[in-house]
Amino acid sequence: MSGNTTGKLFTVTSFGESHGAAIGCIVDGCPPGMALCEADLQPDLERRRPGKSRHTTQRRETDQVRILSGVFEGVTTGTPIALMIENVDQRSKDYSNIADRFRPGHADYTYFKKYGLRDYRGGGRSSARETAMRVAAGAIAKKYLRERYGVEIRGYLAQLGPIVTEHKDWDAVEQNPFFCPDADKVAELEAYMDALRKEGNSVGARINVVATGVPPGWGEPIFDRLDADIAHAMMAINAVKGVEIGDGFASVSQKGTEHRDEMTPEGFLSNHSGGTLGGISSGQDIRVSIALKPTSSIRLPGRTVNVKGEPVEVVTTGRHDPCVGIRATPIAEAALAVVLMDHALRHRAQCGDVRTEMPDIPGSTP
Amino acid sequence: MSGNTTGKLFTVTSFGESHGAAIGCIVDGCPPGMALCEADLQPDLERRRPGKSRHTTQRRETDQVRILSGVFEGVTTGTPIALMIENVDQRSKDYSNIADRFRPGHADYTYFKKYGLRDYRGGGRSSARETAMRVAAGAIAKKYLRERYGVEIRGYLAQLGPIVTEHKDWDAVEQNPFFCPDADKVAELEAYMDALRKEGNSVGARINVVATGVPPGWGEPIFDRLDADIAHAMMAINAVKGVEIGDGFASVSQKGTEHRDEMTPEGFLSNHSGGTLGGISSGQDIRVSIALKPTSSIRLPGRTVNVKGEPVEVVTTGRHDPCVGIRATPIAEAALAVVLMDHALRHRAQCGDVRTEMPDIPGSTP
Amino acid sequence: MSGNTTGKLFTVTSFGESHGAAIGCIVDGCPPGMALCEADLQPDLERRRPGKSRHTTQRRETDQVRILSGVFEGVTTGTPIALMIENVDQRSKDYSNIADRFRPGHADYTYFKKYGLRDYRGGGRSSARETAMRVAAGAIAKKYLRERYGVEIRGYLAQLGPIVTEHKDWDAVEQNPFFCPDADKVAELEAYMDALRKEGNSVGARINVVATGVPPGWGEPIFDRLDADIAHAMMAINAVKGVEIGDGFASVSQKGTEHRDEMTPEGFLSNHSGGTLGGISSGQDIRVSIALKPTSSIRLPGRTVNVKGEPVEVVTTGRHDPCVGIRATPIAEAALAVVLMDHALRHRAQCGDVRTEMPDIPGSTP
Amino acid sequence: MSGNTTGKLFTVTSFGESHGAAIGCIVDGCPPGMALCEADLQPDLERRRPGKSRHTTQRRETDQVRILSGVFEGVTTGTPIALMIENVDQRSKDYSNIADRFRPGHADYTYFKKYGLRDYRGGGRSSARETAMRVAAGAIAKKYLRERYGVEIRGYLAQLGPIVTEHKDWDAVEQNPFFCPDADKVAELEAYMDALRKEGNSVGARINVVATGVPPGWGEPIFDRLDADIAHAMMAINAVKGVEIGDGFASVSQKGTEHRDEMTPEGFLSNHSGGTLGGISSGQDIRVSIALKPTSSIRLPGRTVNVKGEPVEVVTTGRHDPCVGIRATPIAEAALAVVLMDHALRHRAQCGDVRTEMPDIPGSTP
Repeated sequence: MSGNTTGKLFTVTSFGESHGAAIGCIVDGCPPGMALCEADLQPDLERRRPGKSRHTTQRRETDQVRILSGVFEGVTTGTPIALMIENVDQRSKDYSNIADRFRPGHADYTYFKKYGLRDYRGGGRSSARETAMRVAAGAIAKKYLRERYGVEIRGYLAQLGPIVTEHKDWDAVEQNPFFCPDADKVAELEAYMDALRKEGNSVGARINVVATGVPPGWGEPIFDRLDADIAHAMMAINAVKGVEIGDGFASVSQKGTEHRDEMTPEGFLSNHSGGTLGGISSGQDIRVSIALKPTSSIRLPGRTVNVKGEPVEVVTTGRHDPCVGIRATPIAEAALAVVLMDHALRHRAQCGDVRTEMPDIPGSTP
Repeated sequence: MSGNTTGKLFTVTSFGESHGAAIGCIVDGCPPGMALCEADLQPDLERRRPGKSRHTTQRRETDQVRILSGVFEGVTTGTPIALMIENVDQRSKDYSNIADRFRPGHADYTYFKKYGLRDYRGGGRSSARETAMRVAAGAIAKKYLRERYGVEIRGYLAQLGPIVTEHKDWDAVEQNPFFCPDADKVAELEAYMDALRKEGNSVGARINVVATGVPPGWGEPIFDRLDADIAHAMMAINAVKGVEIGDGFASVSQKGTEHRDEMTPEGFLSNHSGGTLGGISSGQDIRVSIALKPTSSIRLPGRTVNVKGEPVEVVTTGRHDPCVGIRATPIAEAALAVVLMDHALRHRAQCGDVRTEMPDIPGSTP
Repeated sequence: MSGNTTGKLFTVTSFGESHGAAIGCIVDGCPPGMALCEADLQPDLERRRPGKSRHTTQRRETDQVRILSGVFEGVTTGTPIALMIENVDQRSKDYSNIADRFRPGHADYTYFKKYGLRDYRGGGRSSARETAMRVAAGAIAKKYLRERYGVEIRGYLAQLGPIVTEHKDWDAVEQNPFFCPDADKVAELEAYMDALRKEGNSVGARINVVATGVPPGWGEPIFDRLDADIAHAMMAINAVKGVEIGDGFASVSQKGTEHRDEMTPEGFLSNHSGGTLGGISSGQDIRVSIALKPTSSIRLPGRTVNVKGEPVEVVTTGRHDPCVGIRATPIAEAALAVVLMDHALRHRAQCGDVRTEMPDIPGSTP
Repeated sequence: MSGNTTGKLFTVTSFGESHGAAIGCIVDGCPPGMALCEADLQPDLERRRPGKSRHTTQRRETDQVRILSGVFEGVTTGTPIALMIENVDQRSKDYSNIADRFRPGHADYTYFKKYGLRDYRGGGRSSARETAMRVAAGAIAKKYLRERYGVEIRGYLAQLGPIVTEHKDWDAVEQNPFFCPDADKVAELEAYMDALRKEGNSVGARINVVATGVPPGWGEPIFDRLDADIAHAMMAINAVKGVEIGDGFASVSQKGTEHRDEMTPEGFLSNHSGGTLGGISSGQDIRVSIALKPTSSIRLPGRTVNVKGEPVEVVTTGRHDPCVGIRATPIAEAALAVVLMDHALRHRAQCGDVRTEMPDIPGSTP
């Protein structure tokens, strides 16, 4: 398989290039009988949409999604749900100056070496534009998980360049263009981004995502652990270079007595594990953190080679996000949603009949 | 699928419990015509084997692997290669005291909730014993990658609890029981581990793995990026809580001019990306780093619940690794090998005919 | 997976309902660098298109396919190729009389029982309209197989109800609305179909498909034999109830001396096997034959039940094929093409390096 | 994937050669909590075992299966169930005379061309010996389907060469070495086989398999229809050249009024469809029929080529079944069981919540 499908039971197969006619996906495996319409998908697309503030790319896409199949009289039928967004704001000529050379740090070179050719317009298939479809597919998963299991999935910006934010308030997250959970930091973020844009440079970011309400028992050892599948989905997001579950790299210097989350009938006493034990959900909050690298498409000149292998300089004009992390929160939420949805169905297939007399240990200490 | 198979074209399907009759796996998709015998697999198994030093579990397993199929007259035939190791040193009664209760931080609770029952002897299927088969399967992949493509895969201990090691020398790695790349740090590690063992506690670790010689073009966008599949394989190793590719979380505070690896006809000028761009190998070294949490099976008492849901105390006797990171280096190497092997074959399937006139940019600046 | 994707390396994921907005598919895994445009797909769609003669359904669909992605400057890029056909001639009200009852012999009842609801308009997802996308995807596979390997895939009507045709001439096949390979039988077929239509009944058919030029070595034992995958693809065509490879059911009464195809350096002396031995292609013609049942949507009244479980009578009006076999030839060709394409890539992945000194035995005696 | 795994949720991965150390498989996805031991698997293995009568190969294998994992205290744990049978009666030297040449009609040639080498001892991986593992895996599926859903799967010999049997009695099937359902035909079969053996020739056969008690709703349109997956599994059995569901090829000359199975609240009035409509089970008996070709390994000399491409004669000595159909009944049953089991789990995953007020139409008219 050429890597454009994710999931085993709830699958998303994606298509489309940044400057092609349309982008889209087929969502397969959604249970029948769920109310669904475009309005269910549009809010998360809106959260990801470019051009909403001066801090993201100025490409103006309305990102209106169409449901082409799989819904009848407002309800999912159990057949594939095809989603499509037409590309409306392409300026392909912006890219003519990179048609013959490779941006350092970009997929330009590797696509060319893999396929022998590449669609250089806006990054073609390697563009983060493709993530719009993941967000749309994720919205279906989110809705199902919420309605059927009471699972909620939310994310926020935990760090942007040198600025670390503190998670004070979920409500704050949606009230600024950064998904920053601390209203007091927004001005600092704006100032930093303004300076960065002026400089012509880009910067990295860290996003945290949390799922609450996941019942114990989801996840398939050995290879398809819930956390392994989450890591797969997160690392598959453009620009992601690191993934942590729970305490992540902090675990390296922890001792067993510190890391293990003790249990009482009233609940877990801590959540260092991030909601998975042995690759299976424990009922605690699933806590995920990801690192996004700085965008490689920047105005500052860099050394590179062209398609003849000659040394040249490259400068990227066109429209780009100076920090892809700013719009990454809904993408990371969607990635987590699709993984959880897949494992919800996988759990039902093999272990749907399992009942234990012992009650679940109440969920999370955040 | 219940998660016991990994890979799309080069697949490993694993079976076995810690205290069952045997552990084993089926390796499918290996090209025909490669010389292969047990002696090719045994060295890596020996590197992972427990009981070699006082710093790992004292379970005495010889870990002698048998090739049951897929090899004829010393050569792979292209048919499935079945591998098996019989368990010889089981002390199941050591575990009777945890049969009715769940170790905090362990898969005990989640397996019970998922399956409604569990094999409590030595962790059953959740035991790290299962990783022996990944090491054996990985040795096949390593051999093929080396002989066919010149790829080398090596790892080392980068940190153990508070002790950070420096990568001075590949040769040093194999000359101490920690896979420590700095001979000067070995005494410090030994002292730390002795104290830890006396204390009855455990500690986390960080392992780095590097693949050299990977040609550009391996990896499948969008979802099955090379780094996404690596993250999947690494997070599927017992106790792993974090994965980084290249600069990983350090990318969060980097700027674009700092992170992007500039290119010249003579080679890349840096390797922040860790060898992948857009999910496809660039020809640079693949650099991976993982965090392993401290073992949850420790002698120090902890609070937990039993199968009736009542509050109880748990103390783990039995034989356990106080730092699973010590034996994790060959496991992480094997995980990387299997992913690379799979993508080597996937690349051949779709892009085997691709030729570009432009020469590859020479590989890595470490 | 919910069954809307076929193939392992060359995959087709299909969506769409008979009376939805559009039907479409995503073709993934096509090698890069092949010239491709809509005009390459349209001829086979035209061969399958309804309403071309009075002997098929009178639904008037232009079946104009759009390529939405995966092609850049007229050449495949190696990324997913999305195809879409908008539905233009829907008369959903024709189906209001079957909204509350199940046509006997139709998927109406089983879809309802599986999903708890169904899109009754034109059969919804169970409609043969969906096969248009298989034909479009198959045209991509056919083109690649022809250009890269010299493989040709052709089919014809071998029997319609009581009328058996003889394969006299490939050219004749395309010169009548039945894909009949014997021009002398066309008048008889027309008279039969006219009488059948007047009667309001339907009838079954047999289609034969042949692939020439397939090299030896394609097919994966044990489960994914080339013939097993062919059987899977053929039985997945609407109305198919039987599949034969080579002599098929005639083999039951054959002796070994009769069935085995003897070999000489100049070629095979017969082709009873139909081009596969042990599930792997032999280099002979792949010969496949399929049985299609008579359409269940007929004007003659039948006994059935309604959604309340009450006994009722059903009469199907709407527009239907009285013999689905008439338009099935391009569908069966496409199914075979997709399977062969998938196995061509699978072969390359594992056995692309294999070379034998012994020359191939020349191909088929038909 | 190299074709040694079947199923999506209930998977069987097989390994082993005819004259290797052992054959085996890993069964993954079995729900936890089912009582299971070797004695559950042995009866079907015994039914398939060679050397029980003079009419099958005289190879003496005890076919004692060992469960190596996945069962704890007599109950399935939900983890992979590994099964192994050691090969005990190998006479590899019998095959030295075919080491350099290819039996016509056998996989010898195609394996050689695919892999560049082959294990010629007893057919290596292409041997029907491998089917023992399918029978063992199928016994697990049969047990689960029976206990959880009340599904029964049974088969019988419907034709052997020219001798057609009539299905008079399920009890008769197990009381003769042919799985013949008509006690009166057994003498005729014995005489025919004795003459055939004396002649040194082989012959084909037809096997019918029936599953009763399958609830409506199993099967996944579009590509993974229940009947398509059945066709895949059946055609993957050694020597199978044709598969029919329900009336199969007889449908070709049927009219719609004849073929459609009318429905009443009391039940279906016929079962021409063979229990699937639109690829989904209807609740009627699943009826499958397969054609097996005559064995290619016969004593009568035939023309062939050797590994140098020279014309030679071949005579097969060694021990072979003169009619593979004789032992094929339990294999076909197992194949059907594995497919049904997989679809039972797939159904649960997506449609486990579906309830309809309308009662199921009672099942089969045979």
